[in-house]
Amino acid sequence: MTSDAGVRRRSLATALGAVAFALSAPARGQQPSPATTPQPKAGKLQIAMLVYHEMILLDLVAPLTVFSILGAQIQLVAKDRSPVRTDAGIPVEPSAAFADCPADVDVLFVPGGLAGSIVAMGDVDTLAFIAARGARARYVTSVCTGSLVLGAAGVLRGYRATSHWYVRDLLGRLGAIVATDRVVVDRNRVTAGGVTAGIDFALVLAVLLASEDDARRIQLMLEYDPQPPLNAGTPVAAGSELVSSVLHRRAPVLAAAASATDQARARPGL
Amino acid sequence: MTSDAGVRRRSLATALGAVAFALSAPARGQQPSPATTPQPKAGKLQIAMLVYHEMILLDLVAPLTVFSILGAQIQLVAKDRSPVRTDAGIPVEPSAAFADCPADVDVLFVPGGLAGSIVAMGDVDTLAFIAARGARARYVTSVCTGSLVLGAAGVLRGYRATSHWYVRDLLGRLGAIVATDRVVVDRNRVTAGGVTAGIDFALVLAVLLASEDDARRIQLMLEYDPQPPLNAGTPVAAGSELVSSVLHRRAPVLAAAASATDQARARPGL
Repeated sequence: MTSDAGVRRRSLATALGAVAFALSAPARGQQPSPATTPQPKAGKLQIAMLVYHEMILLDLVAPLTVFSILGAQIQLVAKDRSPVRTDAGIPVEPSAAFADCPADVDVLFVPGGLAGSIVAMGDVDTLAFIAARGARARYVTSVCTGSLVLGAAGVLRGYRATSHWYVRDLLGRLGAIVATDRVVVDRNRVTAGGVTAGIDFALVLAVLLASEDDARRIQLMLEYDPQPPLNAGTPVAAGSELVSSVLHRRAPVLAAAASATDQARARPGL
Repeated sequence: MTSDAGVRRRSLATALGAVAFALSAPARGQQPSPATTPQPKAGKLQIAMLVYHEMILLDLVAPLTVFSILGAQIQLVAKDRSPVRTDAGIPVEPSAAFADCPADVDVLFVPGGLAGSIVAMGDVDTLAFIAARGARARYVTSVCTGSLVLGAAGVLRGYRATSHWYVRDLLGRLGAIVATDRVVVDRNRVTAGGVTAGIDFALVLAVLLASEDDARRIQLMLEYDPQPPLNAGTPVAAGSELVSSVLHRRAPVLAAAASATDQARARPGL
């Protein structure tokens, strides 16, 4: 318990230190981007969450839960209003088509789900939507492979960013500076690792959008005191045999992701 | 990193030690229940997940994600097939009405969401469904305030169990032995704390239903290496001021939960 609390205190200091750093200084080697510096806005938070076929529902729902508690006005946005399929078998009906989403949002969010992300990376309407909203949003964010879609839209160029561990390195081909932290804040880009990183991500966003007090209240409401019963949540912890097994099972979709990345890189405008 | 890994190793030993203990011995002061001892079954895992109005979607989706990866046959079960409302604004359409759910399931699961749990605690059809399936299921399980519904149906009597921290003590009025662990395994009852405990819960279930190797693979796929940016996930960590604030905001629904508990206790059959 004592040691556990110690770990959390260090995490707190690290994460909030990183946030403070990110908001006050450009990333090493980067020029400051005054146009994308977050500005507080009055009124209800406006959040646009992209939804797409074959997304991972948990990627969406963890941040959605936190944003809901914050009282945000949330749009689930897609090309059209048809329900999108998810890994969990629960379809999600968009609340807005791209054209109906406000031009200015506090947060633009993209969930992951590799098969779906690959399709989104090649969809010009999706990429145009992300580029347009991303240029004006206070925060441009993702969980899991959602960052590949952000990268394909060109909005991570020159930013530190992360993704699910098994595709993280592809971000480098899209002009991002690959980072391995669980939640990466670089100016107004906030990207997170695979699936369950969405909870840590959402609490970091709650600090940025509201306050540390609000984020602490949400953490208590959601009883977020994680205690994994096993220790295999990272490639290092899981060990090379398990990592190889996952990479082998996922080889076809990982190859497709690499190919989609190279096609996105070759597209004019990125 | 070293200290963090140490914490996880202790969690692993504790959780799996608890599981092993629970499967091999009755809880202290309890008689063994041979009729409810888990028996492995051949074929696809059959899982029935109760869904109900005002449930917390995240309570459902974290375990659902893990059960899906395990290749389980999952039914989302409700009184009828009308979509149920959730906290996150995404409705969930049941895949089966109570009458159409198999009589024998490997896992009966109940999510939480206090306002919805209170209604479910007073609904005789819901309670009859839980009592009937719960008497035959290999595992009878819940996340968050779902355990209040299990308790109201009489299936936690004499079992160690837990719930969201702010209603946990009510389980005692329903004949359960209140426990404060994040995931509590007592013979074939597996209950968990509030909302985000569903991920830890689901990995414990994956060990029980499949194997530790399978659970580790799932943990790696979901990149479950939690790093809360703040330390307020339990009442003790959050401190008395924040706890009082939450209890004050939630006073009406907490009073309703206490009242529903007393009504359930007074019902013949419990």
